[in-house]
Amino acid sequence: MKFDRAINRLADQMPVFEPGSVWLAGAGPGDPGYLTILSLFGLHQADVVLYDALVSLAVLELAHPGARLIFTGKRSGRSENVQGDINQRLITLARSGLRVLRLKGGDPYVFGRGAEEALELARAGIKYRIVPGLTAGLAGLAAVDIPATCRGINQAIILATAHTARQEDELDWAAMARLEQPIVLYMALRAIPEIADKMLKAGVDPTLPAAAIAGATTTSEHVMITTLGHIATAVQDFEPETPTLVVLGKIIAWREILQSVKSAPPQKMMT
Amino acid sequence: MKFDRAINRLADQMPVFEPGSVWLAGAGPGDPGYLTILSLFGLHQADVVLYDALVSLAVLELAHPGARLIFTGKRSGRSENVQGDINQRLITLARSGLRVLRLKGGDPYVFGRGAEEALELARAGIKYRIVPGLTAGLAGLAAVDIPATCRGINQAIILATAHTARQEDELDWAAMARLEQPIVLYMALRAIPEIADKMLKAGVDPTLPAAAIAGATTTSEHVMITTLGHIATAVQDFEPETPTLVVLGKIIAWREILQSVKSAPPQKMMT
Repeated sequence: MKFDRAINRLADQMPVFEPGSVWLAGAGPGDPGYLTILSLFGLHQADVVLYDALVSLAVLELAHPGARLIFTGKRSGRSENVQGDINQRLITLARSGLRVLRLKGGDPYVFGRGAEEALELARAGIKYRIVPGLTAGLAGLAAVDIPATCRGINQAIILATAHTARQEDELDWAAMARLEQPIVLYMALRAIPEIADKMLKAGVDPTLPAAAIAGATTTSEHVMITTLGHIATAVQDFEPETPTLVVLGKIIAWREILQSVKSAPPQKMMT
Repeated sequence: MKFDRAINRLADQMPVFEPGSVWLAGAGPGDPGYLTILSLFGLHQADVVLYDALVSLAVLELAHPGARLIFTGKRSGRSENVQGDINQRLITLARSGLRVLRLKGGDPYVFGRGAEEALELARAGIKYRIVPGLTAGLAGLAAVDIPATCRGINQAIILATAHTARQEDELDWAAMARLEQPIVLYMALRAIPEIADKMLKAGVDPTLPAAAIAGATTTSEHVMITTLGHIATAVQDFEPETPTLVVLGKIIAWREILQSVKSAPPQKMMT
C-alpha cells in the first residue's frame, strides 16, 4: 500500500472542518514532519489560514493552493490591539462561512495565546476546535539530542516563558531552580541575562549546564552548550529574530554522553 | 489538489528510514489525528514495530500491513530486566537489517525511557532517530478544554512523573506547589493520595483546583474536576489500567469559564 492510500484511509476518520468554524492549530517547531495529521488535514481543508511569525514556510506550503494566507503580525511585543484585531478577524471570517485555520508555531495552548482566542470565539458563538502541535520546548530539545526527561536525572520538567521578567507576574526563578529539575525557557533571548543574574544571586550553582537552541528543527538550527554562569554572554551574538529556547539543568549532560558514545567504536552485544 | 497528492509531496521530503536503523517514535496520546507525519511515515515504512501498552489500537492499525507487531510489555512497574530485553531486541532486529520502529505512547523523551534506549543503541553502533510525539500532559489537557498556559493565570507549567513517590529521588511536592504554577502528573493514579497528602500537610490550599483525566483523546476519555483536598477520594473509582493524568492549578478554572460562555447566548460583535 502506498503512503497516500494509508493517509486517505486516515482522512476518513478525521473530524469534519465545518464551514463557519475555526481550528486553532499548532504548526509545531518548524519541520513539516513534526506537524500532526490533524493540523495537516486542517491546512488542506481551510479556506483561509491566519498564521503567526513562528510558523515555518515549509509548513505553510502545505496549505491548499486555493487557500488565502494571512500573516497576523509580529513575533513578540504584540500589543493588545493587535490581538483584538486577530480575534475580530477570526470571528468575521468564520461568520462569512469560511473554514478558518488559525495556525500558530508550536502548540496553541502552550504560550500561544490559544486560550484567549478560544474564549473570544466561544463568546461570539463560533465553533472552534483546538488542534495541538508539538511544542518547541520539548521537540526542540529532542532535535538536538537533549531528552526532556531521563530516569535517575530528573523527575519533572518545567516549561516557562521568559517574557514575564520585569513584570508583576514574574516567576520566582530562584525557587524554580532550587527544585533541581530542568527549566526550558521560551523566547528567552532578551530576558536570559536578567533571569540568570537572579538565579546566580540567589546562590544557584554557576556551573549548572545551560543550552541555547535557536531555530530548533529548522534549517537554521543552532545549539550552544554552556553554563548558567556564562549563558548571558554566550547568547550575545544570537540572531534576535530567531526564536530561541534556553534550557537549564543537568539533563543537558546527557547530550555529551550520547555524543561521546556515538564517536566511540560500537560495543559487542552481550549474548 | 487532492489530500493524497499533498501527502505524497510531503513524503518526498521525509528522511529515509534506513534498513538496520531504529526510529524511537512517539505515538501521541491515542487519537491518530494527533500522530505526527513523521511517526506515521515511520509506521508505514517499518518492517517491525515494537510498541508499548500506551500505544492506542487506532494508531497501531496504521502500520504497514506487512509489518511485524511486537508488544513489549507492561505499562508500569516494568523491571530493569524487561527494559534490558527490549534494548537487546531492538539491537538484534536492527542488526538483522530491518527497519525497526520503537513506538511509545506520548513522546519517547517525556517520561518514555527514550533516552535510555537511545544510549543503548548508540553503544551498539546502531543508527537511530528520535521522532517526537505529542505528550499526553499537554495534548490531553487541551482535549478536555484545559489550556496548558493562559496569560494572567500562569507563566510556567510543570510536567512531573508521580512514579517517584516513595523513592529516594522523590520530588519536593510542596516546594513545587508553592511556585503557584500548574503541575501535570503522569501515571498519577496510584501515587496521588500520597502526593496530595504531602502538599496539604505543607500548607497548600485544599481548594486548589484539581482535575483527573483518564484515557485522554481516546474513546474512553473521562475527566473529573475537583480540588486538591478531594482528589484522593475523587479518583478512587478510576479504572487502574487506564493511563490517568492529574492536573493541579488555577488554570483548570479556565475550563469552567469556557463552558459557561459556550452555554450562554452568543454576544454581538462590536463594530
